[in-house]
Amino acid sequence: MYVILVYDIGEKRVGKMLKLCRKYLNWIQNSVFEGEISEVKLKELSIFAKSIMDITEDSMIIFSNRTGYYMDKIIVGKERMKLDNFL
Amino acid sequence: MYVILVYDIGEKRVGKMLKLCRKYLNWIQNSVFEGEISEVKLKELSIFAKSIMDITEDSMIIFSNRTGYYMDKIIVGKERMKLDNFL
Repeated sequence: MYVILVYDIGEKRVGKMLKLCRKYLNWIQNSVFEGEISEVKLKELSIFAKSIMDITEDSMIIFSNRTGYYMDKIIVGKERMKLDNFL
Repeated sequence: MYVILVYDIGEKRVGKMLKLCRKYLNWIQNSVFEGEISEVKLKELSIFAKSIMDITEDSMIIFSNRTGYYMDKIIVGKERMKLDNFL
């Protein structure tokens, strides 16, 4: 399953969150990750993320697409992380 | 066409960028926008965005999906902007 993950996390917790998400997905921009992941691994990531987050203050959004369709991607300006469109 | 837009913009320019993107898409989280937009309007938004950005430093990524498929959306923690999944 193809996913895009974005988060808005308090400064004290953002380091841990970056480290966690990098284990599962590709970092492509400040607090933005993309990649292919299984349903089980996504659940695992969400559980670990919740244990790091202050859910009254922090926010994480996971866009997923079960149909296997990738999103087209246009990058304007500086590409933070060199990554092909299709993994 | 359904799009997700994320940007990582220098502090001096981020206010203008927020104002611009809000005219075209729904703000859902810190520097993250989502919504339905036509090809022409997306081009217009990109041109205006480039005029604001310092493309040697700033970065904007536009995920789009011409097939009309929406992405499923899971929100963990605090929802910044109340918005139905399907507009």
